[in-house]
Amino acid sequence: MKIEYKLKYKDKNSNARLGEIKTNHGTYETPMFMPVGTQATVKTLSPEEVKDAHAGIILANTYHLWLKPGEDIVNKAGGLHKFMNWHGPILTDSGGFQVFSLAKPKDITEEGVVFKNIYNGDKLLLTPEKSIEIQNKLDSDIAMSFDECIGFPHTKDYVASSVERTLRWAKRGKNAFNNPNQSLFGIVQGAEYEDLRKHCVEELVKMDFDGYSIGGTAVGEPKDVQYKQVEYSCKYLPEDKVRYLMGVGDPVDIIEDVERGVDIFDCVAPTRIARHGHAYTRFGNINLKNARFKEDFTPIEDDCDCYACKNYTKAYISHLIRSNEVFGQRLLSIHNIRFLIKLTEDLREAIKEDRVKEYKEEFYSKYKKNNK
Amino acid sequence: MKIEYKLKYKDKNSNARLGEIKTNHGTYETPMFMPVGTQATVKTLSPEEVKDAHAGIILANTYHLWLKPGEDIVNKAGGLHKFMNWHGPILTDSGGFQVFSLAKPKDITEEGVVFKNIYNGDKLLLTPEKSIEIQNKLDSDIAMSFDECIGFPHTKDYVASSVERTLRWAKRGKNAFNNPNQSLFGIVQGAEYEDLRKHCVEELVKMDFDGYSIGGTAVGEPKDVQYKQVEYSCKYLPEDKVRYLMGVGDPVDIIEDVERGVDIFDCVAPTRIARHGHAYTRFGNINLKNARFKEDFTPIEDDCDCYACKNYTKAYISHLIRSNEVFGQRLLSIHNIRFLIKLTEDLREAIKEDRVKEYKEEFYSKYKKNNK
Repeated sequence: MKIEYKLKYKDKNSNARLGEIKTNHGTYETPMFMPVGTQATVKTLSPEEVKDAHAGIILANTYHLWLKPGEDIVNKAGGLHKFMNWHGPILTDSGGFQVFSLAKPKDITEEGVVFKNIYNGDKLLLTPEKSIEIQNKLDSDIAMSFDECIGFPHTKDYVASSVERTLRWAKRGKNAFNNPNQSLFGIVQGAEYEDLRKHCVEELVKMDFDGYSIGGTAVGEPKDVQYKQVEYSCKYLPEDKVRYLMGVGDPVDIIEDVERGVDIFDCVAPTRIARHGHAYTRFGNINLKNARFKEDFTPIEDDCDCYACKNYTKAYISHLIRSNEVFGQRLLSIHNIRFLIKLTEDLREAIKEDRVKEYKEEFYSKYKKNNK
Repeated sequence: MKIEYKLKYKDKNSNARLGEIKTNHGTYETPMFMPVGTQATVKTLSPEEVKDAHAGIILANTYHLWLKPGEDIVNKAGGLHKFMNWHGPILTDSGGFQVFSLAKPKDITEEGVVFKNIYNGDKLLLTPEKSIEIQNKLDSDIAMSFDECIGFPHTKDYVASSVERTLRWAKRGKNAFNNPNQSLFGIVQGAEYEDLRKHCVEELVKMDFDGYSIGGTAVGEPKDVQYKQVEYSCKYLPEDKVRYLMGVGDPVDIIEDVERGVDIFDCVAPTRIARHGHAYTRFGNINLKNARFKEDFTPIEDDCDCYACKNYTKAYISHLIRSNEVFGQRLLSIHNIRFLIKLTEDLREAIKEDRVKEYKEEFYSKYKKNNK
């Protein structure tokens, strides 16, 4: 079965939307935040811990799983769900982000992208067909089209020709697609140019994908550019399909982009900053290595319902982080994932009551971006 | 309340004993294996995971907690149990093992031992009184006397004078002891010399400790020497007090030393080898990095009841270990701890049926020490 998206309610004062996506592994409300399990594991956490943080869908990385352990091993294991013991839905990216982060311009041709295998230096060719073949074998619930994810900034000419390539690649991937239990998303590129975003959306919609991703974000662009990119994409995307904004998960960005009509987010930040001892709070991020937490016998957040906040003090977590103990990273990862998921839960409530703008103002009145 | 040890049954064909120890945090059968939580955390695991592996008592390290976060912070947190959210009993060592592993001979005087603070290079003096004071503040269930743990080999003259010092330090620690809810163990030293072990036991027993530890083991001595040290200690120790063999936890050693009358073991090996990708099995250790596990879709051990074996394949764990993913280390830590605890559970059953020797033969017939 393909996923089904149902638009349930639209905030009267913004473009925020409450929806529901039905998958082969359960039905979940949107807006939602997806924790990232790059190598078929959400770093440091068990599937049970991810589920206890109320995660719906999680994301896994095609490029990484292609190299290790290889899609054939995952397929022989019975697919990604069985391999990693995660019984909820899984979305796989296409390797497109690695085009931006790992490939050089000369490595990108019409055929596909040449990567160097980070483990042994071998040359590897990833094409739209290959990306889809890998994802078909991984058997995720939702696969992504292979796109050219470009950095920021680029000339409009380059962006325009890149959008055309992304569209040709989307078509090739769709033709190669062969997994009846998997859905396929098209990816909207076009940088900060409204006409290019519009054109990309229109061409993708003609191909009729099961959902649409907004790409070219989280590549170092300024925030106002990111919000424009989202705005210019959502403005033209069909209302009856789910919208996934790739790689974005900063608390402020989630609020801004929900307001602009995004349904799904993912980001490695909550687990990455956890490994460096940082926690999200409603008053801004805190660094548990800070001396003021050594004797702070209160939880990270008093009213947080996560395992870390219900059972441990900042003093203990600070001790673990200072002592390089993995359990400290686990506790912060749990809290940070729960924080972002709770944020989307609160936004869903706000949408139902047409008060996303009020919610945002209230959130911003407390949240200090560079608090430590 | 002090701990109470009850000898329940003695194997008719060996010195193995089935017992029970009653603590302020529950009653547990012996022989038992104690997981090690050096810095107030069993490396990579949550307290719930340690409990699910059927752990009774866990061990924490006085030396490490003295340096980080400091015993006063743990005390202000309400003691070690509350600080680390572990509701079972905790045993603290005394810093004696660090005398062996970190101090130079010239640093050891009658007063105590001078250590270099590994974090800032400061000189620190640990005395029998200070060790007890720290442990009293940590508020563990069982504290250890501060002893001179010597390496192997040493002249009999040095061992003899060292035993006398360990006895004087035991007395000083006992006099300084001040926590009515904590028990205090004396530590038997005397290397491989029966007369010195006997003398040490007799003098400690005169001081009337709540239990006795066998020390000077796990310092690089050959196995036959270790077994003699245990034999020469157990032979003279009172039957109505519990016996703890410090730092020993190799599966074969556990069997050999249970046979000689030991009740409690601890060792960092199960979590340490896990971090290097190794798992205990009844057929010997295996290294999950080995290529033969890449497509092995069976658990580490088919009939193991641990979380790792019930939910994950060797192929998945091998992938995690090859990818340096913490969750792989967690799964192996859980399995390895459960393996040693299960071994002591099986030994308890064997004691009840007077078949420890048969159990040992059967175990050895399958177990290859250097299997990989």
